[in-house]
Amino acid sequence: MENLRVVLVATRNPLNIGAVARAMSNFGAERLRVVHPYERAFREAVSAVGAAAVLREAEECASVKEAVEDCALIVGTTAIGNREIKHPLRSLDKAGPVIRKRLARERVALLFGSEKKGLSNEDLSYCHWLLHIPTREGHASMNLGQAAAVCLWEIARGGRSIEEGVRRKAANMETVERINVALLECLVKSGYVAARSERLAEEKLRRMLRRFALDEADAEVFLGMVRKIWESMRK
Amino acid sequence: MENLRVVLVATRNPLNIGAVARAMSNFGAERLRVVHPYERAFREAVSAVGAAAVLREAEECASVKEAVEDCALIVGTTAIGNREIKHPLRSLDKAGPVIRKRLARERVALLFGSEKKGLSNEDLSYCHWLLHIPTREGHASMNLGQAAAVCLWEIARGGRSIEEGVRRKAANMETVERINVALLECLVKSGYVAARSERLAEEKLRRMLRRFALDEADAEVFLGMVRKIWESMRK
Repeated sequence: MENLRVVLVATRNPLNIGAVARAMSNFGAERLRVVHPYERAFREAVSAVGAAAVLREAEECASVKEAVEDCALIVGTTAIGNREIKHPLRSLDKAGPVIRKRLARERVALLFGSEKKGLSNEDLSYCHWLLHIPTREGHASMNLGQAAAVCLWEIARGGRSIEEGVRRKAANMETVERINVALLECLVKSGYVAARSERLAEEKLRRMLRRFALDEADAEVFLGMVRKIWESMRK
Repeated sequence: MENLRVVLVATRNPLNIGAVARAMSNFGAERLRVVHPYERAFREAVSAVGAAAVLREAEECASVKEAVEDCALIVGTTAIGNREIKHPLRSLDKAGPVIRKRLARERVALLFGSEKKGLSNEDLSYCHWLLHIPTREGHASMNLGQAAAVCLWEIARGGRSIEEGVRRKAANMETVERINVALLECLVKSGYVAARSERLAEEKLRRMLRRFALDEADAEVFLGMVRKIWESMRK
């Protein structure tokens, strides 16, 4: 993410600049550039919990040209709307891998336009291609801070992927069979299962216990519970 | 997204509820549930541009139990932090496909906790597993509206994927060769290329024009430009 430059052009609301800075900080992008924002005091944006460093180091640029001139790939964002698109266009899912690949070797600028009008045609003329976040047809316009968060997540994607505790060690069948025996005794004793249909009930119960997909630890705990109940019933 | 229920538990700031509603509306999720929010007036959240319908239809629930009882999969979100995780845990990139698959056949609840403390251990006990957005170690805490937007994007991912105008029809070599000839004439005339090294220059120029990867339309335009310049130089 070191090679990424997030460029905000003519942003009206300093809270949005703060929100973008916060998302940048969350996803490890540090270099923010701001082209003539509506308020000079954007550095004090209050919503930027934990993003003070990004705001403090933000560079103010006089023009889009200045903001992108040290970058090798310039990507503009667009909600499309009624605009006729003259540029190559990628949805975010397609754009992410392309940007990631380019970031590995050179600087990439990602441009966001003003909340009201987006990027102007002049701004867009500096872009190699445009990025679009696919949204519902009836409500395409995203909040700037949320749009930036979604883009940054997608660009940083896969960096610290985890999946823990999802595949647990399954219980071995000896334990499950013990549960089956103890539970059946409880069921017969309670009258849930009639003694004469015990055989059928045992098979049904065994199939049900298989579907439970018990893990090793849970099977032991469950066996303990059932045995305790059986003990108490026998008295 | 029809089967998704977004559940906000003990949210403090109504603006955040509005922001979540807006992201939901953007990504086509319509059913919001709110469990004892700090302010009853959450429906008037001003930041919710275009999300009025989601807020108006939001259900207020007395407890997490009530908010999730008609769902088949309950997923809690966590920033992890210092908390000891007892649940199976998936990062968002891994969680997205699992949630998408389940949404195709049954209701899924996605829980977000309060801005300050996240979900309580009691809230978490209703969850099948937890979802985590991988963020930078030094700044894990995301804004609620931004976290929701990122999750919803990932769950809706791939729905309206596009890539347009990226692969253009390449110029055929006849046109490129004409550019080569015309440009070389200009370069000799201007003195950039000495007449005696014309042969070498021609090869270099040809290789450079190949690297330009001109498309059909651009090649014609560029040829026109070079020819016009050559005409004007000849006079």
